[in-house]
Amino acid sequence: MDNKFPGKDISLEDLKSKFPLAAKKTSNHKSKFKISGVEFGGDLIPIFAGPNMVESKDLILDVAKNIKQIGAHFLRGGAFKPLTFPYRSTKYNETREEGIKWLGIAKEKYNIPVITEVMEEKFLPMICEIADILQIGSRNMQNYPLITAAAKTQKPLMIKRHYGSSLRDWLGAAEYALVEGNEKILLCERGVSVPHTHRSTSRFLLDLQVVPAAQEMTHLPIIVDPSHATFWRPWVKPMSLASVACGADGIMLEVHPDPENSAVDPLQPIDYKSFKKLRDQLGSIAPIVHRTI
Amino acid sequence: MDNKFPGKDISLEDLKSKFPLAAKKTSNHKSKFKISGVEFGGDLIPIFAGPNMVESKDLILDVAKNIKQIGAHFLRGGAFKPLTFPYRSTKYNETREEGIKWLGIAKEKYNIPVITEVMEEKFLPMICEIADILQIGSRNMQNYPLITAAAKTQKPLMIKRHYGSSLRDWLGAAEYALVEGNEKILLCERGVSVPHTHRSTSRFLLDLQVVPAAQEMTHLPIIVDPSHATFWRPWVKPMSLASVACGADGIMLEVHPDPENSAVDPLQPIDYKSFKKLRDQLGSIAPIVHRTI
Amino acid sequence: MDNKFPGKDISLEDLKSKFPLAAKKTSNHKSKFKISGVEFGGDLIPIFAGPNMVESKDLILDVAKNIKQIGAHFLRGGAFKPLTFPYRSTKYNETREEGIKWLGIAKEKYNIPVITEVMEEKFLPMICEIADILQIGSRNMQNYPLITAAAKTQKPLMIKRHYGSSLRDWLGAAEYALVEGNEKILLCERGVSVPHTHRSTSRFLLDLQVVPAAQEMTHLPIIVDPSHATFWRPWVKPMSLASVACGADGIMLEVHPDPENSAVDPLQPIDYKSFKKLRDQLGSIAPIVHRTI
Amino acid sequence: MDNKFPGKDISLEDLKSKFPLAAKKTSNHKSKFKISGVEFGGDLIPIFAGPNMVESKDLILDVAKNIKQIGAHFLRGGAFKPLTFPYRSTKYNETREEGIKWLGIAKEKYNIPVITEVMEEKFLPMICEIADILQIGSRNMQNYPLITAAAKTQKPLMIKRHYGSSLRDWLGAAEYALVEGNEKILLCERGVSVPHTHRSTSRFLLDLQVVPAAQEMTHLPIIVDPSHATFWRPWVKPMSLASVACGADGIMLEVHPDPENSAVDPLQPIDYKSFKKLRDQLGSIAPIVHRTI
Repeated sequence: MDNKFPGKDISLEDLKSKFPLAAKKTSNHKSKFKISGVEFGGDLIPIFAGPNMVESKDLILDVAKNIKQIGAHFLRGGAFKPLTFPYRSTKYNETREEGIKWLGIAKEKYNIPVITEVMEEKFLPMICEIADILQIGSRNMQNYPLITAAAKTQKPLMIKRHYGSSLRDWLGAAEYALVEGNEKILLCERGVSVPHTHRSTSRFLLDLQVVPAAQEMTHLPIIVDPSHATFWRPWVKPMSLASVACGADGIMLEVHPDPENSAVDPLQPIDYKSFKKLRDQLGSIAPIVHRTI
Repeated sequence: MDNKFPGKDISLEDLKSKFPLAAKKTSNHKSKFKISGVEFGGDLIPIFAGPNMVESKDLILDVAKNIKQIGAHFLRGGAFKPLTFPYRSTKYNETREEGIKWLGIAKEKYNIPVITEVMEEKFLPMICEIADILQIGSRNMQNYPLITAAAKTQKPLMIKRHYGSSLRDWLGAAEYALVEGNEKILLCERGVSVPHTHRSTSRFLLDLQVVPAAQEMTHLPIIVDPSHATFWRPWVKPMSLASVACGADGIMLEVHPDPENSAVDPLQPIDYKSFKKLRDQLGSIAPIVHRTI
Repeated sequence: MDNKFPGKDISLEDLKSKFPLAAKKTSNHKSKFKISGVEFGGDLIPIFAGPNMVESKDLILDVAKNIKQIGAHFLRGGAFKPLTFPYRSTKYNETREEGIKWLGIAKEKYNIPVITEVMEEKFLPMICEIADILQIGSRNMQNYPLITAAAKTQKPLMIKRHYGSSLRDWLGAAEYALVEGNEKILLCERGVSVPHTHRSTSRFLLDLQVVPAAQEMTHLPIIVDPSHATFWRPWVKPMSLASVACGADGIMLEVHPDPENSAVDPLQPIDYKSFKKLRDQLGSIAPIVHRTI
Repeated sequence: MDNKFPGKDISLEDLKSKFPLAAKKTSNHKSKFKISGVEFGGDLIPIFAGPNMVESKDLILDVAKNIKQIGAHFLRGGAFKPLTFPYRSTKYNETREEGIKWLGIAKEKYNIPVITEVMEEKFLPMICEIADILQIGSRNMQNYPLITAAAKTQKPLMIKRHYGSSLRDWLGAAEYALVEGNEKILLCERGVSVPHTHRSTSRFLLDLQVVPAAQEMTHLPIIVDPSHATFWRPWVKPMSLASVACGADGIMLEVHPDPENSAVDPLQPIDYKSFKKLRDQLGSIAPIVHRTI
């Protein structure tokens, strides 16, 4: 690891004193661990796929079956979902405890591990019965009591970067999890908020530069979620390919059988056919950067 | 072209009325043209390589020879270079008219076309004798009289995006060039300024999302310059690979025989060996996205 | 209320359907309510003053006595304080339950109401015994379960804007509180993260423009905290004066008897003498904008 | 001047070596000079008022007469105006040489000095015959050849900050002017581009924090233009009052007899009556910060 960072937010001393567990010990230090049989931090680039929300039992079973067949490693889907305001349309409805149960049925039936978001400590025991990875959403990236409680369960954790947060803040959140003795921590980039003047390129801008930047400082695997960042179906493919090309340790994708009728954010999911095609292209790029999918 | 853009900065109507020449006419409209025998906008992804500054005759001859051998299509190098403040160290010295002459010698000797920056109208005739492409630097992206004068020469033009400018502003600059009847206009992304909180990922953030975003709106080729954006040698490779993966129509790289002793921004250039290796990897990724290098 | 907003983030329809309780009903609708005898939303501009952290019993008693004498309306001080990483120096130590108790003693002894941060639902009953206003810190602005639980206590709430959040997100957080039937909600601006290129003006940039912007949309009082935003003692005075001049409905200031030895962020608090002088200047500006202090 | 700056963009050494002429020599160093009889950098806060564009002779004469009467110190108005794209509507039409002539007539008739934008070196002699201050627009803030040429005329210069530029870039532009021996340089803040997520507060965000920040580093007067930043009539008043309260050395305002029919940006100008009222309020705030208007 070089002695100088171009960004001034984190110095090497800062990194070692404030983030001793998240910081790399040597320049090629990289965490390697298995979650439900899938290796992270090694050659494999695991793929997480599924709908934004666990809308119904039928939907999640259909998705699980299809993405498993196409080659996804994890099924994603939210049963608990934060929304900017407290009102829900009939369509946009959290399925909560029931949704978690359906995820469990899909997991069992198609033998695919599951990642889902946790928003409150009190639901941890219930969600932990089903989930293979607990997701801390970007809005809760600085909710340290929640991160601490989730980490204490010793379930693997994926911490999404807040759209307004620095790499330093993000590593701080990881450190809160690591200090609980939980070593299976994933970081997930999902788009940052950018100057007003850049807005024509979407709600958020996928910060791919953070992939090599984070890998220079931390040994933790860096996952990329191009669906949320781009918020726009046609850009998911190019940005996914770019993610693998620049060294992402995993890819998270929104996949839905009928994207335009997705209960939430219908502009961003891709359908099975597109996912199949994209998965194949990702598989072709991986070996060029010495990885596999 | 889809009827809805996720970003609200440009509507389809706006695009067609304000940027009639830069706007795509149909969804797969893409400009294809040759510059000094090299095709842009087709299968080929041309590579521009060379030092930040034309420091000396020896340097530019050495670089021209080596990058040509490795497979670059254009030699880049600045003889006129803006600096944030008016004072120059002995090391950081514009070579101006002389530098342009040296670029001409290198071009002749190694048969490689040349791209270089133009900062003032009065130097246009002199620079046009040598340059194959005129570069409008990011600081002059909104200097419309300069763009107009440069476009009128009918030399091909590459317009770098200002780090604080939107896609809308950028297309506006291109429109100023196109309205002069000059059809060989390239756009170049070189990093945008990002929120304070993201600063640990460098001075600028390479906006790769703008590649599919711009290609959705304009038929002009989009070049990416990962050297200036990352400002950090180790990130140039991953971001270059990502650029090709997400659809860039050309790549601009800073290459220097002795990067650490580069007269300016010594943290960002790569050496010949790294360039050779990177060129090979870029060449492997290109076919996966149906391109060649 | 005018029919057009210059920013496109919130339309009038959006405002009325997504934020029905936070939205103004008529153009001069403004909430007016008393908290512990102090009126908000009327002529008075209440001042909150005190240390960043309740470091010790002696400190908080000394501050309470002095700021009360100088004319502050509320005593502020954090007993529970989030930190970017999980490690605390001896100096930077949350005083937690004990700190809350000391706040209670200061409140009693000097007859001054108290505002303090709440980070976890489980501490709500204990904190509610002492606090007159519960503060939701900027990191928890999107922690909706916490906001809901705090609002349910029917204690007045002050929601600090996250440095990466829009006015829309902020109003959404307020709506989560209002929907619980709690009508005493204050919003507090404390600086937004800005492009990398503007960083010489500090960690955050105080967004004073949000004061008239928010007042155009919501009837809730808008408090401004110039201490956290500027992070720099000499700028606290000019930005406080500007806050009152542009229509702030309250001012929150960090005041410490020995600012340079403040346990946290020692570059930003002002001492009693400066607070006295500033309070007088604020008092002179207030009548010019038809307010009092 | 304190030894530490909270922002890391400029160190004291940097300031002294890169910006020796723009940097303050002592902590209370402040340039004081007269332009056409009006003192800058002293107690007075000069006011510049007028339309965005010199639309017609009648308009500019009417404005000059009225703003002079109300108490403005300078007449502003653009005859040369950059636009994001090369096409002009009939309404939005530069009046160029003619507009400059009309400014001259208004200046003569109502005995009020004039500030107007210069975009190209070749028009300098003609504009210099009329203008008392040359304005470098924000798009040309990094057009160093233009700044150099304008500074060489020894006419006073006002350099508007680019919306994407740092204080460091801005001081660099001033240094280019100062190095030509021109000592009458004004800096003008007109709004910065902010993260996407803050966009509901308008196109730009008026960076008032830059007023004390810049005054900590440079002796040059800092003017504030709230009209362009807010882009919204109702916010011009509160942000103008805030500008004076936080220490601005001058205020620039768009004033138009019929704002809604302004040829350009009709959402931002204020009418004579509002200007009169605002001027009076500004005059009341000034003494509180030890200034006059």
